[in-house]
Amino acid sequence: MSIDLTIVQFCPKYADMDYNIEYMTDNIKEDDSDIIVFPELSLSGYFFLKKSDILDLALRADGEIISQFQNYAEKYNKAIVFGFIEKDKSNFYNSAAILMPDKAESSIYRKSHLFYKERLIFEQGNTGFFNVYWEEKDLNIGTMICYDWRFPEAARSLALKGADLILCPANLVTGVWEEAMRTRALENKVYVAVINRVGYESINEETLQFNGKSTIISYNGKNIISAGEDNEIALTAEINPEKTRDKSFNEINDIFIDRRPELYFK
Amino acid sequence: MSIDLTIVQFCPKYADMDYNIEYMTDNIKEDDSDIIVFPELSLSGYFFLKKSDILDLALRADGEIISQFQNYAEKYNKAIVFGFIEKDKSNFYNSAAILMPDKAESSIYRKSHLFYKERLIFEQGNTGFFNVYWEEKDLNIGTMICYDWRFPEAARSLALKGADLILCPANLVTGVWEEAMRTRALENKVYVAVINRVGYESINEETLQFNGKSTIISYNGKNIISAGEDNEIALTAEINPEKTRDKSFNEINDIFIDRRPELYFK
Repeated sequence: MSIDLTIVQFCPKYADMDYNIEYMTDNIKEDDSDIIVFPELSLSGYFFLKKSDILDLALRADGEIISQFQNYAEKYNKAIVFGFIEKDKSNFYNSAAILMPDKAESSIYRKSHLFYKERLIFEQGNTGFFNVYWEEKDLNIGTMICYDWRFPEAARSLALKGADLILCPANLVTGVWEEAMRTRALENKVYVAVINRVGYESINEETLQFNGKSTIISYNGKNIISAGEDNEIALTAEINPEKTRDKSFNEINDIFIDRRPELYFK
Repeated sequence: MSIDLTIVQFCPKYADMDYNIEYMTDNIKEDDSDIIVFPELSLSGYFFLKKSDILDLALRADGEIISQFQNYAEKYNKAIVFGFIEKDKSNFYNSAAILMPDKAESSIYRKSHLFYKERLIFEQGNTGFFNVYWEEKDLNIGTMICYDWRFPEAARSLALKGADLILCPANLVTGVWEEAMRTRALENKVYVAVINRVGYESINEETLQFNGKSTIISYNGKNIISAGEDNEIALTAEINPEKTRDKSFNEINDIFIDRRPELYFK
């Protein structure tokens, strides 16, 4: 079964949750694909240095705003994935909501590897790497966030657990991830999508320039479709999860069966 | 301390050990770098389908031919690395000799991941991934062979054990490894060298075309120097092992300290 995947590259307004919710909601309503994905922290903006600055932007996973997006997932029979500041008791996480048409399949991933000054406000993610299985579409969706890209173990863990598609909502500020993300697709024979933002944010005279280039990568490590580095755009590609499940590439080699985990140093 | 690394891309003559030994010996004698590396199975050629065809090409690690190269390592105060068919009792391995000026530091790596019809003649390597430490030069040398490139765990294991430089003697027949090998350097912050061969070999109407492009890659994931796809050439680059030891890239993040092995699925 083929699946239409849409990635939305945009510039979230800093600390303007109303604007961002409306922008994302409009995209969800206009889109007719099976999955729609937005960048990391797309509800809030990215660059915060004090917990006191995010109190009004932090959401409970079971709160009203996430529930509203869950309702859209059900209403439009669509998987909806986006980043948000999650509040759990007194802790904050850099999280991604993976909201499925069947609420029982929905889940929250908390970013495992924190980048730079995220450490000032977020706890390290404690959910680990897991996939969400969409039974109706027979699709295994793995999710990681931004700097997780740099650790081959992140995508590897998701792929070994059966991911067909690895989503990576991101707020990337360099270009060094591009070859690496194609490598993640190739070395695991899975689809990979990087959903980056554009624009910039400044605080205390430090500016982060986000560089777009959101990309859907095929299981052969080649880009299917890519965005520019500074424009807002929604891109759609068709993916076929069954293509990712046979890990052989000739009559003898299979990139998963050929592994020698007993020799690997962790 | 900076180190001069030479990689020799050439076309070994099929099953002509005398020619290959002379070619390699000439290069060793003419070279004035600290390390010289030749391709996978450079003593024998690559494409064999029956054990009976390699009996005269298989060498004991402590035999005369390897010992002669060990003598050159001592005489020229140079690390010499090359691939050969290793015979150990009744088993054959696709091995790399890592021959150091101090014989006590020399070692043999047996290819962990066997490609395609190598499985007809070789046993899977049982040495695991290890580094050879060259005390005089303060350099940790990790070695993997060809198809090991496809498994991020190979380079990762070497890097986590302290490799400054990962050598990958190879007989590569596709181009899909190029971005991946730059990614191995980047994700581990180590130098990586791919020492590929050129030319082709045919057997039973099946032809393997080896595609060169031997490359020395810096710890930032950028090529330092690369060969063409069909010429014999020796390339030299200067590397500085100390550059690979600080795994931080800003005042907060360190790509090794940031790892979350408790979350990784192996």
